[in-house]
Amino acid sequence: MQLTWFTDYGLRLLLFAAAHPDRRVTVAEVASAYQISRDHLMKVSQRLTQLEMIHATRGRGGGLQLAQDPASLRLGAVVRALEPDMNLVECFSPLTNTCRISAACRLKGALLRARRAFLDSLDEHSLADVVGDPEALRALWASGPAPPDEASQRP
Amino acid sequence: MQLTWFTDYGLRLLLFAAAHPDRRVTVAEVASAYQISRDHLMKVSQRLTQLEMIHATRGRGGGLQLAQDPASLRLGAVVRALEPDMNLVECFSPLTNTCRISAACRLKGALLRARRAFLDSLDEHSLADVVGDPEALRALWASGPAPPDEASQRP
Repeated sequence: MQLTWFTDYGLRLLLFAAAHPDRRVTVAEVASAYQISRDHLMKVSQRLTQLEMIHATRGRGGGLQLAQDPASLRLGAVVRALEPDMNLVECFSPLTNTCRISAACRLKGALLRARRAFLDSLDEHSLADVVGDPEALRALWASGPAPPDEASQRP
Repeated sequence: MQLTWFTDYGLRLLLFAAAHPDRRVTVAEVASAYQISRDHLMKVSQRLTQLEMIHATRGRGGGLQLAQDPASLRLGAVVRALEPDMNLVECFSPLTNTCRISAACRLKGALLRARRAFLDSLDEHSLADVVGDPEALRALWASGPAPPDEASQRP
């Protein structure tokens, strides 16, 4: 069970913008801060603009800024909007379902409740909550590549 | 956000076995009941056997039966065991993480809590809970292909 890179990058971009409330940020600098693809991030920023979660300004001095109050933007809302598909299993969508028992299946109900618990848990946090101390985050973004993890140091 | 077909089929197989407590079931009949791939289901049954969730008996009269009390088998435990990867985003695993801020990132904490809420919600249900009325399920498995959904009837 994974979120798509699209949602992952969307959350990262929103976090970066929220941690720089005093100015516009650019796709290039966000890509550099996380060492991720600029092209991928561009697609995500276009979607976030469509969703009116960020506002994009073109031209010299242009860039991206949050279009919503980060204290009001809930993480569950972001995930719901960015994930292409929250259908945990085939029977969640009438377009894909082929299962004979879905009308009476309690397994489906249990999975639907679990998805609700997941999103409700995310909705307990606003974007402002997860920014916390923006200075600490800004220092980490500026710190260069992440140190290799212990696991990758094993011979 | 989706579960893999592997987990989906595993849950279906366990449900089928739990709804037929008086006898062994075969991969062929489970595949036929759900109209899903017998080969795929065979791989899932091998994994469930390794996990000691089902017991497989070879030869004439052989087949699969639950190896655990369905009232004790929690859905969260099944999903944890069958999903190849519960790493919602890159930073959940030290093997894949490249993010500079993960040490201080509250977004990661929020996603970890959401995953916990998902699995805890599933753990509220045992396999026996979701079987409910096995006769109703058996009637549906025997009923032939699922009727086309409304959506697919649109011209």
